[in-house]
Amino acid sequence: MTEKPLILITNDDGVWAKGINELTNSLKQLGEVVVFAPDGPRSGMSSAITSSIPIKYTLLKKENGLTIYSCTGTPVDCVKLAVNEVLHRQPDLLVSGINHGTNVAICVNYSGTLGAAIEGCIFDVPSIGVSLTDHSAHADFSEACRLSNQLAALVLKNGLPKGTYLNLNVPDIPQVKGIKVCHQADGRWVNEYMCSANASGEPVYWLTGSFKNTYPEDQGNDTLALEEGYASLVPCKIDVTNYNYIEQLKSIITE
Amino acid sequence: MTEKPLILITNDDGVWAKGINELTNSLKQLGEVVVFAPDGPRSGMSSAITSSIPIKYTLLKKENGLTIYSCTGTPVDCVKLAVNEVLHRQPDLLVSGINHGTNVAICVNYSGTLGAAIEGCIFDVPSIGVSLTDHSAHADFSEACRLSNQLAALVLKNGLPKGTYLNLNVPDIPQVKGIKVCHQADGRWVNEYMCSANASGEPVYWLTGSFKNTYPEDQGNDTLALEEGYASLVPCKIDVTNYNYIEQLKSIITE
Repeated sequence: MTEKPLILITNDDGVWAKGINELTNSLKQLGEVVVFAPDGPRSGMSSAITSSIPIKYTLLKKENGLTIYSCTGTPVDCVKLAVNEVLHRQPDLLVSGINHGTNVAICVNYSGTLGAAIEGCIFDVPSIGVSLTDHSAHADFSEACRLSNQLAALVLKNGLPKGTYLNLNVPDIPQVKGIKVCHQADGRWVNEYMCSANASGEPVYWLTGSFKNTYPEDQGNDTLALEEGYASLVPCKIDVTNYNYIEQLKSIITE
Repeated sequence: MTEKPLILITNDDGVWAKGINELTNSLKQLGEVVVFAPDGPRSGMSSAITSSIPIKYTLLKKENGLTIYSCTGTPVDCVKLAVNEVLHRQPDLLVSGINHGTNVAICVNYSGTLGAAIEGCIFDVPSIGVSLTDHSAHADFSEACRLSNQLAALVLKNGLPKGTYLNLNVPDIPQVKGIKVCHQADGRWVNEYMCSANASGEPVYWLTGSFKNTYPEDQGNDTLALEEGYASLVPCKIDVTNYNYIEQLKSIITE
């Protein structure tokens, strides 16, 4: 291509988070970068969209090859607004992250980081969500940045199949062994609430809990790769249809 | 079974919406019903979860075979809190809806109605999301209730495969031809924003747009079934891994 690749970066921890800033620095060398991210934390927003109130955006910085906007919406709103109204052309790549915290297994379902990657994919932009297993504000993103850069370069070169996006999770260790291609682990969260009292003495419930892998030894699942010191990479689909069940369901419906 | 089936009902339009109330009336004859729904509209919340503030719930009604609660959280919060803390046992069925408005194709991704069904499925509860193509507050839910009742009875009898939930959409016509088992249509929303000014004269953006089906003639897609006067029923999977792409992705990563 004659012009530099256009890379859209967003996240769900907000434009001021360490993860998105380190990611931006690590991808600048690969192309023209536009950051279009929420103006504050939007963790756990999944693919939520804002439809009952309007959203707006603000230009924070414009320098050689790097433009940064903040937006009042969700991660998905950011992708929609950037692609529909702000960017001068379709991006060549979307990277969402680097999230402060793990997004493996079913967490792809709740994560705003992945919500943004799904939205990029719906727009036919090759899209990657990146997460680090450390959720602290001052986490060390150096290995996650190295692997994000490596993966971004590969995706810019090879593209991705229509309707497929990537979910990269990086363990918080000094030297990651490499990227392992995986499938999503089967499991769910358990003991999800802590009950306390509000100022009126009424019970209120705080989300907490721990993840329970249904088949921990299942070879090739993403949680296992992290435990073994690898970054896990899961190719994910927009189309959630269970094609294998269609004929059986037809026979049940016509009973 | 010796005791009546336990049916959990929720939605994303809130506990006072017409759709959930008509659904509740139509399912009461099938078992013990617990409604646990948001205290107001939560449309477009997808699988969003509330983690930075606590949530609470309120008992609104308890009569023979029917209990109704409202909750300050999202549709997914409702399912999590009900299953973790409120219900006396695991439900035999979850029905989310009836949504005021269509949730076909990629809308399964943005919908709070489907977010709740996904969450039920994660808890291994056979789960169904139901939506009507009319989004008005006073829509006619009679056909949607008739088909929801029929489908709920079939799912109570036959169950669903682990990790699979159902997405039922009913057209707003006097006589629906029946339920057609479909796959999710491929497409996306276009022209998604209307720009206006806020009180300070700054541009703000309202979500709008129209759905564009990539392959409108694709046989068996859910949007087509609705156009033909059928209710569409898509079996959907929790596991979004694109297994067909894993080997090719491995070869790209090891380049």
